[in-house]
Amino acid sequence: MTGKLVVIGLGPGDPRYLTPEAADALAAAEALYGYGPYLDRVPPRAGQIRHPSDNREEGARAAAALRHAAEGANVAVVSGGDPGVFAMAAAICEQIESGPDAWRALDVVFVPGITAMLAVAARIGAPLGHDFCALSLSDNLKPWNIVARRLDAAADAGFVIALYNPISRARPWQFGNALERLRRHLPEITPVVFGRAVGRPDERVNITTLAEADAAQADMATLVIIGSRETRVIARPGRPPLVYTPRAAAKVSA
Amino acid sequence: MTGKLVVIGLGPGDPRYLTPEAADALAAAEALYGYGPYLDRVPPRAGQIRHPSDNREEGARAAAALRHAAEGANVAVVSGGDPGVFAMAAAICEQIESGPDAWRALDVVFVPGITAMLAVAARIGAPLGHDFCALSLSDNLKPWNIVARRLDAAADAGFVIALYNPISRARPWQFGNALERLRRHLPEITPVVFGRAVGRPDERVNITTLAEADAAQADMATLVIIGSRETRVIARPGRPPLVYTPRAAAKVSA
Repeated sequence: MTGKLVVIGLGPGDPRYLTPEAADALAAAEALYGYGPYLDRVPPRAGQIRHPSDNREEGARAAAALRHAAEGANVAVVSGGDPGVFAMAAAICEQIESGPDAWRALDVVFVPGITAMLAVAARIGAPLGHDFCALSLSDNLKPWNIVARRLDAAADAGFVIALYNPISRARPWQFGNALERLRRHLPEITPVVFGRAVGRPDERVNITTLAEADAAQADMATLVIIGSRETRVIARPGRPPLVYTPRAAAKVSA
Repeated sequence: MTGKLVVIGLGPGDPRYLTPEAADALAAAEALYGYGPYLDRVPPRAGQIRHPSDNREEGARAAAALRHAAEGANVAVVSGGDPGVFAMAAAICEQIESGPDAWRALDVVFVPGITAMLAVAARIGAPLGHDFCALSLSDNLKPWNIVARRLDAAADAGFVIALYNPISRARPWQFGNALERLRRHLPEITPVVFGRAVGRPDERVNITTLAEADAAQADMATLVIIGSRETRVIARPGRPPLVYTPRAAAKVSA
């Protein structure tokens, strides 16, 4: 008997964003592994075993799920958003590469989902409408000087920047430092968007400027979009403004 | 009576990737606007009018849809992938900004979708598992020197690079030029992934190296992922290899 491991993206949380492929994979799984709050978003099903774990235990969770699948079970690992964007897919691959040979023989399937930057962008217009990058501000797994260098390079070259994991209790100063650094490259009026929990009851999406952006507005679940020099805000009477980056790049000099 | 404009992401094409939010919005629309082949993916519905247009007519299509919505209709504009990533959402915002005041008063909703880079990445592992950027190679709307500068900056700073619109009949040399340029920054063995039509009958996903990558392998609908110095390939007996970028960045010097 051969086991199977499916790594599933739940999207931002609301079932409206869950793809049929992800829903089917969740329904077929005998066991679910994941960060507790993500597992809580999956409706319970009789006979399906749940293995919640903490959000700093990705490696151990991946190994446990692979061991279980190698025993012949149909196992699912759930991620918020897309599993391939700062989530469980890379952790699974790391374990497969360093683990026993049997893990390389397993049927492993990755099911994409709506990642946070797409959900936040859709709420306010099209800030990612032109070239952009996605950058994790966490320096748990990379030195801060690499983060700083990437922020400099991205802002300087005209990429819109989507920041994942901007801040946490263990990383209190990094996001403020990143904002200061970006102010050296970009105008004060550059649009900045803070978004969290899109589609959930506690959804919050705010538009500000780089001059006014305050690190205290973000928490661990916030996705931050920093515009480029091209990013614009359209005021609308009686409606929230739209933020977008035009398809044509005219103002960046090479 | 107030009209509504919904800008919908269909994902990569297979209905398994279509979110329930997108399916509901398609069902509710009185009129659909979009590039012909994308409209063909939407099941026909009695009473729903279709307005297909060519893929180089985004501005005119956006204006036509806005005019129709301003007359009081529930209008949908469909995009492949995610509407906010090199697709219709920015074109709609451009028209709203430059158009009549009534267009700013419209209810405009953006419905996110699975963009090509997420679908291709999921097919082969987790190449976007660490910091990455998305870059359109089209120089229809930006000068080539900006594209070149962004390629240099992204490769040099250690971003994985997802290339949209790599090649077309009107842009035959740009992708080859981009590959040559990237070879100056990245090792020959850097993994490169070509993916197209994920989930559709003509799906094709190939893994190669930067040394071996050939521009002729791509067409207009191909999404290309260029690894960073960290990106790795896991050989698997009897299964296709996995390509992934580890969560930890160790090898990039700052």
